[in-house]
Amino acid sequence: MNLEHLKQEVLEANLDLVKKDLVISTWGNVSGYDPESNLMVIKASGVPYVKMSTKDMVIVDMEGKVLEGNARPSTDTPTHILLYKAFAKNGIHGIVHTHSQYATMWAQLGRSIPCYGTTHGDYYYGPIPCTRELTTEEIQTEYEVNTGKVIIEALEATDCLHMSASLVKHHGPFVWGKDAEEAVLHSQVLEYIAKMAYCNETLDPRLQPIPGVLEDKHYSRKFGPNAYYGQK
Amino acid sequence: MNLEHLKQEVLEANLDLVKKDLVISTWGNVSGYDPESNLMVIKASGVPYVKMSTKDMVIVDMEGKVLEGNARPSTDTPTHILLYKAFAKNGIHGIVHTHSQYATMWAQLGRSIPCYGTTHGDYYYGPIPCTRELTTEEIQTEYEVNTGKVIIEALEATDCLHMSASLVKHHGPFVWGKDAEEAVLHSQVLEYIAKMAYCNETLDPRLQPIPGVLEDKHYSRKFGPNAYYGQK
Amino acid sequence: MNLEHLKQEVLEANLDLVKKDLVISTWGNVSGYDPESNLMVIKASGVPYVKMSTKDMVIVDMEGKVLEGNARPSTDTPTHILLYKAFAKNGIHGIVHTHSQYATMWAQLGRSIPCYGTTHGDYYYGPIPCTRELTTEEIQTEYEVNTGKVIIEALEATDCLHMSASLVKHHGPFVWGKDAEEAVLHSQVLEYIAKMAYCNETLDPRLQPIPGVLEDKHYSRKFGPNAYYGQK
Amino acid sequence: MNLEHLKQEVLEANLDLVKKDLVISTWGNVSGYDPESNLMVIKASGVPYVKMSTKDMVIVDMEGKVLEGNARPSTDTPTHILLYKAFAKNGIHGIVHTHSQYATMWAQLGRSIPCYGTTHGDYYYGPIPCTRELTTEEIQTEYEVNTGKVIIEALEATDCLHMSASLVKHHGPFVWGKDAEEAVLHSQVLEYIAKMAYCNETLDPRLQPIPGVLEDKHYSRKFGPNAYYGQK
Repeated sequence: MNLEHLKQEVLEANLDLVKKDLVISTWGNVSGYDPESNLMVIKASGVPYVKMSTKDMVIVDMEGKVLEGNARPSTDTPTHILLYKAFAKNGIHGIVHTHSQYATMWAQLGRSIPCYGTTHGDYYYGPIPCTRELTTEEIQTEYEVNTGKVIIEALEATDCLHMSASLVKHHGPFVWGKDAEEAVLHSQVLEYIAKMAYCNETLDPRLQPIPGVLEDKHYSRKFGPNAYYGQK
Repeated sequence: MNLEHLKQEVLEANLDLVKKDLVISTWGNVSGYDPESNLMVIKASGVPYVKMSTKDMVIVDMEGKVLEGNARPSTDTPTHILLYKAFAKNGIHGIVHTHSQYATMWAQLGRSIPCYGTTHGDYYYGPIPCTRELTTEEIQTEYEVNTGKVIIEALEATDCLHMSASLVKHHGPFVWGKDAEEAVLHSQVLEYIAKMAYCNETLDPRLQPIPGVLEDKHYSRKFGPNAYYGQK
Repeated sequence: MNLEHLKQEVLEANLDLVKKDLVISTWGNVSGYDPESNLMVIKASGVPYVKMSTKDMVIVDMEGKVLEGNARPSTDTPTHILLYKAFAKNGIHGIVHTHSQYATMWAQLGRSIPCYGTTHGDYYYGPIPCTRELTTEEIQTEYEVNTGKVIIEALEATDCLHMSASLVKHHGPFVWGKDAEEAVLHSQVLEYIAKMAYCNETLDPRLQPIPGVLEDKHYSRKFGPNAYYGQK
Repeated sequence: MNLEHLKQEVLEANLDLVKKDLVISTWGNVSGYDPESNLMVIKASGVPYVKMSTKDMVIVDMEGKVLEGNARPSTDTPTHILLYKAFAKNGIHGIVHTHSQYATMWAQLGRSIPCYGTTHGDYYYGPIPCTRELTTEEIQTEYEVNTGKVIIEALEATDCLHMSASLVKHHGPFVWGKDAEEAVLHSQVLEYIAKMAYCNETLDPRLQPIPGVLEDKHYSRKFGPNAYYGQK
């Protein structure tokens, strides 16, 4: 079990959340998944970013058992595990949770973010979903597992490769990607788009999403067999 | 009377206000309380942060008497004293006053900040209260003492351990914590939450606070006998 | 074909987009045009700004053919080419595309930005136009060429010397100037003005543009035979 | 005529505008006035802040004549001169003009900024006035002199010691202080207050200014015979 490389990667991704202005204090967390060992590395709970090192990166198995060291993993660990169980087979090996301001603001509204422009369309296919409200029972028992469940539910109309984020109602965003670094980029993009959509609706509450044909064009420019964005 | 350590702590907390973008110029102030000597250390009045040193940290007793040096303490000293008299027995040993933009904006509205999400719920139990308006007499006589009085009044429905901030109507926030450093963190969190709540209401003026059961869950995850956030 | 100087200039202009907070990740692109050789230099597609060097600056002719190296030029290259074909004769030798937040937000609204003050009037003569929507056919065939076409269409009421920007509906801004550096400055100014106009309309949806006589005064202070702004 | 010290002071104040995020590019200008020689030092016109040195600080007399060097002074020089003619006798020896975003946004609305809180009351006594619109003739002839005239007109209800700023309708703020440094501080405070007032009105368009008695209290805490803010 040599996950030193993954620990380093997850550490850097965590620190990148601070540089990209997506977290303060001890908030948020990044995890990375190793498909070979079926283990994940995740930030320790409540650790401030200013003093963080690889010692604060906790190895956890898919039952939530800590395999190394004494640190407690993030309280959101059960949510990460559930998402890896559902998404890892599609190549999702990095997950991020933040309370970034505009994305969280949409989560607090309990609303999906409509696709108001090609910046959105370049990354997310369709509206970025917001989960339903958890029931009292779901909150009181296995809250973090149930948070994962409603995210997976919210993704049902699409799939984790075409939609790399979900807002959890009343709470904030969970975001993923092929690795921890990409999941952080997707968190930054989400915040960027969430801010523009906020401004759009405060100026024009009746704004309509962009035409489907334009959405298809931008998405297929970047993804799929006919993509021509980026280097070969 | 050796409070050098506290002076250093209060200096650093004051300087942290600048780094966290919570003050400009000479605005705001942080104090720290020493339970053994029943004394407090507070920033000198009107001193710019760019040149601040421990010489600008003034030792004051609970009658407001300066015990060392020639510097005048912050004009808000009587407010700090009153809050320590009320809260220190509960372990509140740090107080911060700022005019941070979004928190002050809510104070200028004269409104409490409703709990619109779990980011709020992770720190504050219930709405962050705003004081009533001071009477003409309260403004004209012992203004700073009366500012403390209306804060304590506003906390009556809750207590200083479950609510680490109050907005003073027309003015701005007073915030506290177990020490100066924590009080600064609570000021940063307040500003963060105040901005999100502002955005929420400009998009949806009829938004409702989060369900009580969710509030309870998040608060008890971090505080109380069953807390499981952070390290043991 | 020695365009090393232009490559350096275009590289610096691209990096300046990051410093001026106009792009994140791999977004946006700057090109520069060399009138002697009738060639342009443009950023390679999908290259992150953090590792960018002159090797990522691609030389392209006016048919879109890459003349040096293996890197793919920006996917927006056909748009740049069309704009140089239309504007280069007037001295426009630099073009920038970004998704800067407030300018993009106006593009997402599908609205021109009205001239609400002299800051706008100092740079742009009249409202900053937004293109019409592309048709399904224009999106599906030669999308980037057609993006250039609707920009040129949108400029018809004015000309590229009096109006250095156009918003592309649902998408974002294209901006130009006498060289890459000036085009970046114009992108920064556009974002600045777009933010103020946003705030203006959220406070007063019925605000009127500034009087024509004031617009004329400010524009002629900076441009034309009687200009007296700047050094001789 | 040795104004090297004033040149240095005005240079630093100009550069401070950039650090305080109040200007971009070549925008804005600071001047300082020397009562002994009845001369002012002002930034040269159209000079970018990134390369600025004391060589770009121009000495001008009260008729607008340049007394040293070849640089053109700021186009706004006649406005500064008129304001010194009116205000210098009261000790106003520094003037700043910026297009800082929220202050300019209020100027574009053509509205005074109401006193919505004690942050405002700590610096400005009453609403920060906005000038009337200039007439066509005033715009076309001696525009910059007339800009000064409408500022002085707008101050008529108060005086330059109790009100250190005026918004020029459609344009932006002019701000002053006892020296260049204080005028820059007042510009920063104005921008800070302008942003909070913007947020206040977008949430509550019917918000009322603070009670006069509170305004009096805060202003007299900092200014006048009974002031007790700051060091003796």
